[in-house]
Amino acid sequence: MGVLERLTELGSKVEAALEKYLLMDTDPEFREAVLYPVRTGGKRLRPALTLASALAAGGGVEEAIPAAVAVELAHNYSLIFDDIIDHSEVRRGHPTLWRKYGVTTAILVAVHYRESISQALNDTRDPKLFEAIMARTLKLLVEGERLDVLFEQAGRSDEPYVVERRRSVVTLRDYLDMVYKKTGALIEAACVLGALSAGAPPDLVEALSSYGRNLGLAFQVGDDIIDIFGREEKTGKKVGKDIEEHKLGNVVVLLALEELPADARGELLSILRKERLSGQDVERALKLISATGARQRAEEMRRFYAGAAREALKPLPDNEGKRLLLELTDFVAVREF
Amino acid sequence: MGVLERLTELGSKVEAALEKYLLMDTDPEFREAVLYPVRTGGKRLRPALTLASALAAGGGVEEAIPAAVAVELAHNYSLIFDDIIDHSEVRRGHPTLWRKYGVTTAILVAVHYRESISQALNDTRDPKLFEAIMARTLKLLVEGERLDVLFEQAGRSDEPYVVERRRSVVTLRDYLDMVYKKTGALIEAACVLGALSAGAPPDLVEALSSYGRNLGLAFQVGDDIIDIFGREEKTGKKVGKDIEEHKLGNVVVLLALEELPADARGELLSILRKERLSGQDVERALKLISATGARQRAEEMRRFYAGAAREALKPLPDNEGKRLLLELTDFVAVREF
Repeated sequence: MGVLERLTELGSKVEAALEKYLLMDTDPEFREAVLYPVRTGGKRLRPALTLASALAAGGGVEEAIPAAVAVELAHNYSLIFDDIIDHSEVRRGHPTLWRKYGVTTAILVAVHYRESISQALNDTRDPKLFEAIMARTLKLLVEGERLDVLFEQAGRSDEPYVVERRRSVVTLRDYLDMVYKKTGALIEAACVLGALSAGAPPDLVEALSSYGRNLGLAFQVGDDIIDIFGREEKTGKKVGKDIEEHKLGNVVVLLALEELPADARGELLSILRKERLSGQDVERALKLISATGARQRAEEMRRFYAGAAREALKPLPDNEGKRLLLELTDFVAVREF
Repeated sequence: MGVLERLTELGSKVEAALEKYLLMDTDPEFREAVLYPVRTGGKRLRPALTLASALAAGGGVEEAIPAAVAVELAHNYSLIFDDIIDHSEVRRGHPTLWRKYGVTTAILVAVHYRESISQALNDTRDPKLFEAIMARTLKLLVEGERLDVLFEQAGRSDEPYVVERRRSVVTLRDYLDMVYKKTGALIEAACVLGALSAGAPPDLVEALSSYGRNLGLAFQVGDDIIDIFGREEKTGKKVGKDIEEHKLGNVVVLLALEELPADARGELLSILRKERLSGQDVERALKLISATGARQRAEEMRRFYAGAAREALKPLPDNEGKRLLLELTDFVAVREF
């Protein structure tokens, strides 16, 4: 079995507990909507990371399950709101929660998710510490999402906050800061909470923290590459969605802008700043980007962070958990979907 | 000083801590939006209840401040979402958060509030227990809001969940269940967390729990009365807003429907079920309601719950905290704003 299959198998061990916490203090009439986000897919990659980290730190799967559930719920919690914020209508081949039931229900389900996180964390080895880590992580996610939206170059004319604070310049450093908060922090927390569930000593917790942080960056850079250069038959996703959404918060776009001569640079920016992009606009943007070395540099970047994640694992003892985490870095370094 | 002034003075003791927890892990650029909801007013009634309950249980104010902050944040957290859900544009004489900054920012601020709750609870006497109580309470709030929306008789045509499950019949029992969840549960939690902050024994915790539950019901019945019969010069609010919002979840409306003869009953229901109500419609509804004994029965009801709250305080020792809580029941029983 490949690493993805083994991680999926590991992640599937949270299913029962996931539904248990979601259904705590839940009216029967509300159940269908509450379960919809977790029943319409999701690879359970983050809880698998929690469980693999617990194994890697010398612990067992069972004791890490409440933390793994909390991490998967946090991921879904953020997706419910992201889909409302981005007006996204489809996720994992199904209508998004707000599209299916309405915005009111989606908001209520999301709030319910946050309390299920809390209820899961209450069953961990150290609720006070785990809750403190989760609170900090979710504040980082908020900040990452705020920045990602401010990095958009058009749209949201009904959002005074965004219109007034929009960034016309985004540096690579701004990008990395945003991406760590939006994606890296939760993957880091997934690994840290796994290590802590196993009662790991500080040096191993720190090793897994660094692993998660770097893996998260590699993962998001990969997502950015796939968004621009992916092939729809592999990804099931539309190519160039980030361009359509006016995003400067895609590293491939950023690196291309760095390289392009002034006139082409201006053209790419003006496409990103159009209120409504046509298919031709997106194609033209992709063509401008393809003429640069952005793809290659982005690929180097994700290999760099995947390598840093691999390196971070050195202090850990050799075992099945560590092997899984190592193989995952190889996969993340090259994945095309 | 009247009871309201003394409670406001007590509640004002949370201001500094409120901002401290809200500003934890917060980017400077985000501060203005984060502080907006708590800086545009609010009577701090709930945190005052937490502090008064701690005093009533023989404890001090200082040790109950983190819990009081958590309660006030929970109240604001729910209001941010309620205003989005109800498309409300004004609160406390200011634009609502979403109206001022946009829906994206309002959602991000709300998520940030929930994590500040968690950070405040981390500084309480028993974070694991306090967080468990908060999680259960917020799940109840979600359920109360869900029911309140399902009790509306029109609107939300873009919300399939609501349209399909809307209740055409709402009993007094349904109402009390909804109102306990929407309003009573958080006021109950405010009192319970105060008692627990003081290290109160189980019988006093139970007494303050019962006090909060009943006070919350009296409070919400009062809100319903004021919505229908209030005088704008006293309340600063428009009369009949619940009717405009198609609500069966107002006890005065429910009691009126019970009494009205079939044809008038049909007329009142058909007004509530109009997609858009004119000023004349609202006036006509108010006239139909005024012809019944609904007002008097609702007044009896709030006196009943205020009395039950007063009764619940019996086991508590006589002190300044208890005196405040007692006086509050008298105020809540008759307030006109």
